[in-house]
Amino acid sequence: MQKVLRELEVDLGERSYPIIIGQHLLGEFDLTPWVVGNQVMIVTNDTVAPLYLEQAKACFPGKAIDVVVLPDGEKYKDWQTLNLIFTALLEKRHTRKTTLVALGGGVVGDMTGFAAASYQRGVPFIQIPTTLLSQVDSSVGGKTGINHPLGKNMVGAFHQPEAVLIDADTLNTLPPREVSAGLAEVIKYGLIRDEPFLVWLEQNMNALVSLEPTALGEAIYRSCQCKADVVAQDEKEGGLRAILNLGHTFGHAIETFAGYGNWLHGEAVGTGMMMAADLSVREGKISRDDQARAVALIRRASLPDRAPEGMSVEDFMGLMAVDKKNVDGALRLVLLRSLGDAYVTADASPENLQATLQAFIHQG
Amino acid sequence: MQKVLRELEVDLGERSYPIIIGQHLLGEFDLTPWVVGNQVMIVTNDTVAPLYLEQAKACFPGKAIDVVVLPDGEKYKDWQTLNLIFTALLEKRHTRKTTLVALGGGVVGDMTGFAAASYQRGVPFIQIPTTLLSQVDSSVGGKTGINHPLGKNMVGAFHQPEAVLIDADTLNTLPPREVSAGLAEVIKYGLIRDEPFLVWLEQNMNALVSLEPTALGEAIYRSCQCKADVVAQDEKEGGLRAILNLGHTFGHAIETFAGYGNWLHGEAVGTGMMMAADLSVREGKISRDDQARAVALIRRASLPDRAPEGMSVEDFMGLMAVDKKNVDGALRLVLLRSLGDAYVTADASPENLQATLQAFIHQG
Repeated sequence: MQKVLRELEVDLGERSYPIIIGQHLLGEFDLTPWVVGNQVMIVTNDTVAPLYLEQAKACFPGKAIDVVVLPDGEKYKDWQTLNLIFTALLEKRHTRKTTLVALGGGVVGDMTGFAAASYQRGVPFIQIPTTLLSQVDSSVGGKTGINHPLGKNMVGAFHQPEAVLIDADTLNTLPPREVSAGLAEVIKYGLIRDEPFLVWLEQNMNALVSLEPTALGEAIYRSCQCKADVVAQDEKEGGLRAILNLGHTFGHAIETFAGYGNWLHGEAVGTGMMMAADLSVREGKISRDDQARAVALIRRASLPDRAPEGMSVEDFMGLMAVDKKNVDGALRLVLLRSLGDAYVTADASPENLQATLQAFIHQG
Repeated sequence: MQKVLRELEVDLGERSYPIIIGQHLLGEFDLTPWVVGNQVMIVTNDTVAPLYLEQAKACFPGKAIDVVVLPDGEKYKDWQTLNLIFTALLEKRHTRKTTLVALGGGVVGDMTGFAAASYQRGVPFIQIPTTLLSQVDSSVGGKTGINHPLGKNMVGAFHQPEAVLIDADTLNTLPPREVSAGLAEVIKYGLIRDEPFLVWLEQNMNALVSLEPTALGEAIYRSCQCKADVVAQDEKEGGLRAILNLGHTFGHAIETFAGYGNWLHGEAVGTGMMMAADLSVREGKISRDDQARAVALIRRASLPDRAPEGMSVEDFMGLMAVDKKNVDGALRLVLLRSLGDAYVTADASPENLQATLQAFIHQG
């Protein structure tokens, strides 16, 4: 029997949408109230399809369902793969009244969202995220897009889903590395805005790592709530929303250096958050004890604590310079004023930044 | 000396923007008030660049200007060419505060607009249309996009420019076929909404065909005003805006059949409007005399009056079935209730439609 544990609304005026969190939802929960017309195109990948496609189809009783199965992996988050979605939509003659459904992780969600934003200049879509990372991060907030060889997520759109359905049961089939990657973003919410949640995470990290359903449901709910709250205040990333990028400027540089897909996004963010905490100490904001507490929690989630082998300070500086968060050439970073309180700055001391980078690279 | 002939505002609330129409504007008119940051990327093509690039640069005094020159032609309105813009932006390290400038015809405008809509999930852009078609049509309304092998303009976004600068002098270098193609859209405005403008066009068609500047300025202004008025009432094409597609369902089928770029968009629309007028007679809306009047005016603009050689009724039916304006499978067409009054219908009689198609194909 389906069991809705929690439900919340992302408040964006006309573009508001619900996030439904629970167990046994796939195969049972009726998503047709969020489908405008008669056509549904489920977009998934070759890893998720054998596990959940049939159950996902059962969420759309009475609709004409087509499916496009993409190859799995961040390295396919490119135009060629995106175009498979457009081709399927056109071959199956989907009109402007179609609804796209993203069934999979962040890559499937970002690509399906961008396909929905761009197909015939915009059609609706529904998110069914099946990884922890996508459940707590990429399915909330409307950021969609693909990678460019010169930079991650450089081509995309803001496009909000009609609804997000999160079935925590899907995490039972998730590889442990991907659970850790998701936990990086969960920890991030504690670090940037919610010290009590950070304490809760310190108490429940073991339960989360062992996929205890109630703990997972709670962590997903509080993460989505935090992100939804930030996004509602700043839909298009004019200001506040930038704090959601804690660890991401360092992390994107790591991902680009390593080659998309070799480091998971959450892994790179995990290391990136440690780097941000380190720089926050050097900038005189948090104590070494605070940093140690953050690092310890991130390590308990089995996340890497150093940059990839062979990555130099110069590699970081070059790759960070093209980051989207920069404005007119100045490097913008998210740092911690205290645990549970992040801020954005373009004024971090270059010497401190160098020292942080130096501390996290592998010494030749 | 620059000479602003006319100026109008497209009223879209927060997204409102001005259209400035005149002579001697390129090289003299200061566009920096519509540039947010310091970076400008001018996107143009290899036909327009030698003619107007230096003059266009002079419209952005004090800004850091980069340029990307695309190959000219509708057949390059694809992802590979669009990606040249993203690559140039990333290589030159353009941030979210960059401003794109479209210098060229409809293809450059549509692609630059979509690049602006998608680069880092959206940056501003300015239109400097240099063909009659783009001046009266594609630079107004915010439709941007690229073609897919299975359908024209199937991938894109609604993205409004910051400003549109129309210098009628650019038409002096335009090939006569392209002038005719632009006049097709000018005539369209008279047919769908403005019978007095249709009368004005009947009186001034010779002046327009011979590029008389005052007549051109007036035709551009009245066309933009008509389109701006329709778009302001229906930005995202929920209803009224669909009448702007008079002749386009037939026309898109012709363009797709002929292969993009072999027939100009305006040429296909010219023939398509004759077909719409013919079907409007068969549907009992306008008289054969009205149709003859419309056809005569379209012919005076030197537009083709038949489908391409070898195109069959079945070709039309197949290609029209994937048109964006269809909803849940029903073919939607724009027809004329009278000259100067268009309507949208999904109920045209299939027999009448067959008869119209039959009347416009080349008989085997």
